[in-house]
Amino acid sequence: MKLVTIDTISGGVAGALLQSGEILHLGRAAAPGTIEAWLPASVRGILMAGPEGLAAVRRMVRRVEDLEAGERDRLRHAGALTDASATPLLAPVPDPRLILAAGRAYGAHVREMGGGPPPHPTAFLKSPDSVAGPGAVIPIPAGIEQVDYEGELAVVFGRACHRVQPAQALDHVAGYTAANDVSARDWMPGVQAARTPVEGRQSWELNIMGKQFPGFTPMGPVLATSDEISDPSSLQLATRLNGRVMQSTSVGDLIHPIAETIAYFSQWYRFQPGDVLLTGTPAGVGFGRDPQVFMRPGDRVDVEIGGIGTLSNGISAA
Amino acid sequence: MKLVTIDTISGGVAGALLQSGEILHLGRAAAPGTIEAWLPASVRGILMAGPEGLAAVRRMVRRVEDLEAGERDRLRHAGALTDASATPLLAPVPDPRLILAAGRAYGAHVREMGGGPPPHPTAFLKSPDSVAGPGAVIPIPAGIEQVDYEGELAVVFGRACHRVQPAQALDHVAGYTAANDVSARDWMPGVQAARTPVEGRQSWELNIMGKQFPGFTPMGPVLATSDEISDPSSLQLATRLNGRVMQSTSVGDLIHPIAETIAYFSQWYRFQPGDVLLTGTPAGVGFGRDPQVFMRPGDRVDVEIGGIGTLSNGISAA
Repeated sequence: MKLVTIDTISGGVAGALLQSGEILHLGRAAAPGTIEAWLPASVRGILMAGPEGLAAVRRMVRRVEDLEAGERDRLRHAGALTDASATPLLAPVPDPRLILAAGRAYGAHVREMGGGPPPHPTAFLKSPDSVAGPGAVIPIPAGIEQVDYEGELAVVFGRACHRVQPAQALDHVAGYTAANDVSARDWMPGVQAARTPVEGRQSWELNIMGKQFPGFTPMGPVLATSDEISDPSSLQLATRLNGRVMQSTSVGDLIHPIAETIAYFSQWYRFQPGDVLLTGTPAGVGFGRDPQVFMRPGDRVDVEIGGIGTLSNGISAA
Repeated sequence: MKLVTIDTISGGVAGALLQSGEILHLGRAAAPGTIEAWLPASVRGILMAGPEGLAAVRRMVRRVEDLEAGERDRLRHAGALTDASATPLLAPVPDPRLILAAGRAYGAHVREMGGGPPPHPTAFLKSPDSVAGPGAVIPIPAGIEQVDYEGELAVVFGRACHRVQPAQALDHVAGYTAANDVSARDWMPGVQAARTPVEGRQSWELNIMGKQFPGFTPMGPVLATSDEISDPSSLQLATRLNGRVMQSTSVGDLIHPIAETIAYFSQWYRFQPGDVLLTGTPAGVGFGRDPQVFMRPGDRVDVEIGGIGTLSNGISAA
């Protein structure tokens, strides 16, 4: 199942991407007098409702996919079924409570940034205000010149997750989406972050600052539930800048597997439904290239992950 | 005005600490058919309602303080006025969307930790799940031995705040509370963070991890609104461990004044009502002492700030 958050005039509401390519508006299509009518309006609310919440949505999606043509037409007329291409989406969870972002997670990326593999997973928090949706235009603040892409697989938690073991970690995952951990390498006008973040405290700290600007964490287009992705390490990820492939990896190339990474960070953090873990970016970022490549107004950046789809965002001046 | 969040069976609800020492339950005391009945139930909701929200609460507090004894008795019988000592409180904003915590903010503390003053404010994000209320017992995770206190003044935002100038920064502040940026210096069992966080990337990163455990950001007891605190630099802060004064400072000793610090971070972050900025801790932390002092189960730690009151927390094994 592929959950989405639809951008409506009254805020984000939960939907599902059907196999037909249409978006099902859960609230508008709910059958009165059934559990469907009681589903929370938001994806995060559905995740907080636990496995029963997801199961109810799954039954609803099947029910609609099995409808006869006339009944589907009726849903279309009611605005409960819309073409995906004409449906504005927010991030699958547009208001995550916590965004933990792994750094130095793929060996080749660690080398291009000038360091060695860390002995344990490393991560930092991103501001929830940095979240943006698929299709959103990422604004570059005035004076910032070195805005880089970082295509990543994002884990969305479905159950509270604290002090879990690796073998149980993936049981706490609701699903996966694509993310771009957009990073200003010159984190404030005129000041470039050092090239070797392993060699100084300031570099690590300042690199993190350049990731906090509004809009610097687009995610989407869908939350593919974990019943569809039993092994995230089998996923393929590619980042394209204006159509040119800049990053390409198997998620299986992560230094620390996702289950280990979740278990590790759960020692400190108490993840809740809707919380997000960005799992880190592979080699090929613009900062590590010779010559370096940065994103400019008018550019388009895509992060494509098999089984999830393509997160596509434009770049503009702020 | 001193806002509080009362811990009730149906979650945290907004209240106010009256001059009498009683807690006014806003929802229970609201006059039907007036704006009082429409006030949001939570402190964050009231802040999001803007200056009109705070003004309505202020009028309500004055109205109740002017009531005759018989009318106040009626409120007591209705559970709308309770003794502060018998009213369990949560943090004034128990669910902040963003907690930004300044580090290396007081000169003497920077020296005791083994570094020099930073050329600009530095800060990191804390997990919202680390928030705890006044009176809450702070659980020390198994295997962690070096849990330290860091008494701090906390700023609570009342208006969206992005790219503001220092001269306007304090206009975006709803008020102030006391906080304890509890910090495990041995951030995971058996591994101690380096003593000199300025000398290595890992130290900065790992020091931050040891601040993310559940319950490691108690705040309270009240949110003193900024009309009561026109100049936060005039506030006095003291931290006591089992009654012994461990930290004592004027907030005016901050290397970077609060207005400058807010303006600085607002270049990246887009603060929203209810977001929190911890302004950093002064000298005297247990880690910087000789011999070092750490908190143990059974200890009590108090952070007292003039005009706000005393945030008092016990320590326990997890």
